Amino acid sequence: MFVQATESSTGVSHDVARLGRLVRGLPETALVVDAITGLGTTDLQPDEWGLDIVIGGSQKALMVPPGLAFLGVSEKAWKLIERSKLPRFYFNLARERKAQSKSEVSFTPATTLVVALHTALEYIRSMGREKLIANAAMLAEATRAAASALGLGLFAESSPANALTAVSAPAGMDSGAIIKELRARFGAIVANGQGSMKGKIFRIAHLGYYDAPDMFALIASLEIVLTKLGHTCELGAGVARAQEVYLGFVEQEAQAAQAGRP
Amino acid sequence: MFVQATESSTGVSHDVARLGRLVRGLPETALVVDAITGLGTTDLQPDEWGLDIVIGGSQKALMVPPGLAFLGVSEKAWKLIERSKLPRFYFNLARERKAQSKSEVSFTPATTLVVALHTALEYIRSMGREKLIANAAMLAEATRAAASALGLGLFAESSPANALTAVSAPAGMDSGAIIKELRARFGAIVANGQGSMKGKIFRIAHLGYYDAPDMFALIASLEIVLTKLGHTCELGAGVARAQEVYLGFVEQEAQAAQAGRP
Repeated sequence: MFVQATESSTGVSHDVARLGRLVRGLPETALVVDAITGLGTTDLQPDEWGLDIVIGGSQKALMVPPGLAFLGVSEKAWKLIERSKLPRFYFNLARERKAQSKSEVSFTPATTLVVALHTALEYIRSMGREKLIANAAMLAEATRAAASALGLGLFAESSPANALTAVSAPAGMDSGAIIKELRARFGAIVANGQGSMKGKIFRIAHLGYYDAPDMFALIASLEIVLTKLGHTCELGAGVARAQEVYLGFVEQEAQAAQAGRP
Repeated sequence: MFVQATESSTGVSHDVARLGRLVRGLPETALVVDAITGLGTTDLQPDEWGLDIVIGGSQKALMVPPGLAFLGVSEKAWKLIERSKLPRFYFNLARERKAQSKSEVSFTPATTLVVALHTALEYIRSMGREKLIANAAMLAEATRAAASALGLGLFAESSPANALTAVSAPAGMDSGAIIKELRARFGAIVANGQGSMKGKIFRIAHLGYYDAPDMFALIASLEIVLTKLGHTCELGAGVARAQEVYLGFVEQEAQAAQAGRP
């Protein structure tokens, strides 16, 4: 079974923990989780939840340029892989595991990116993986609150991802115009929708090194752009909601830290 | 038909021009040339020779870190690709061609390496592609001459590649010992044989930015290492042969340049 943990074209989050419970009871099925944007933005417990293969990429919350993918494989999945007769060459994981057991690799890797990844992982370890995830969750929650305050709809209302937020453009306004203005006026880069969603949504990232000031700046810029494009909204209203979410988060963190002390 | 232009595990060169003439007459067959080490070290004329797919990598004569591959596709191959029912996803070239026609890509590429490749290609264009190839050919010829002067055998005697030279270790000497000493004494990195050739050959690279002084230094270092390990050879004998090849090459270049002038 193949699923995304979170989905970067729409900002949707999937309940992989529940899927893991279902698949755990099926001996012939592995749960393969594309966690490219999920890794470092969402709590993932591969062993506890029965996620058999979890795939990450260098270019999202790990803050490294694109070019690397990596995956964790459960013992259950290894057994299926060893029996599998599907044709594969570069994706021969058994061969790669054997090579890595000798500190080698099956094929020439992008060595400079591996070195960059090492540095990024050291940084994440120094801050704590949970803080990286909590930061994305806070930015996402604050952005959703701001979007609502500005009268904008959310694409993934019931199950939003932490990695990014997909915001609907106001009725009759092309999201491409918002994106263009943000970039031209403020050098702020947000992404358009893909495929059938092009022109309908714009996507704001929250992962990795994005921080609260980045978010405040983007929301304030967005308020100006929307106003210029004819959407009625109160300047500062989105920022104020985001600030409240931020302060609530900081307060919670402080309480948790205090509770953790003797 | 799949073939390497030159083969980096053994330093063998293949006659892809002749293979191209054979395959050109077969409408249902494409000639796919792995030119990872061949590109920029060997004359390749894809259109003239009927090479249908020529595959290059960033990490060899193109002097960029590993992580990128790219390929040129003939019209004949495109027609076969369009009809092919073989399962593929990342290797769906028709999809990639369509995306590139819109200045997009099908999947997230290693952007930093693409930028580095651009710079490398500008450098190669400024010097001339033929000079890049001629440099590798000269270094390879000089290295072969030096190896012979030192009493060492060549693995690919009848059809050597320009990209690298695979040299046999003296009888009874493990090539790993030579490699280790070169690295420990001189910081010089040469590669061991792979698989069944491990311990039997060592491989000296000539591609990309390797130049004559690199080669002189390596041969002189090799002479010392061989002597220390008990192989009898005359110090400087290999270097002298390499110098002669270099001077012959420079002379030829000068004559060619003069002949080109009015």
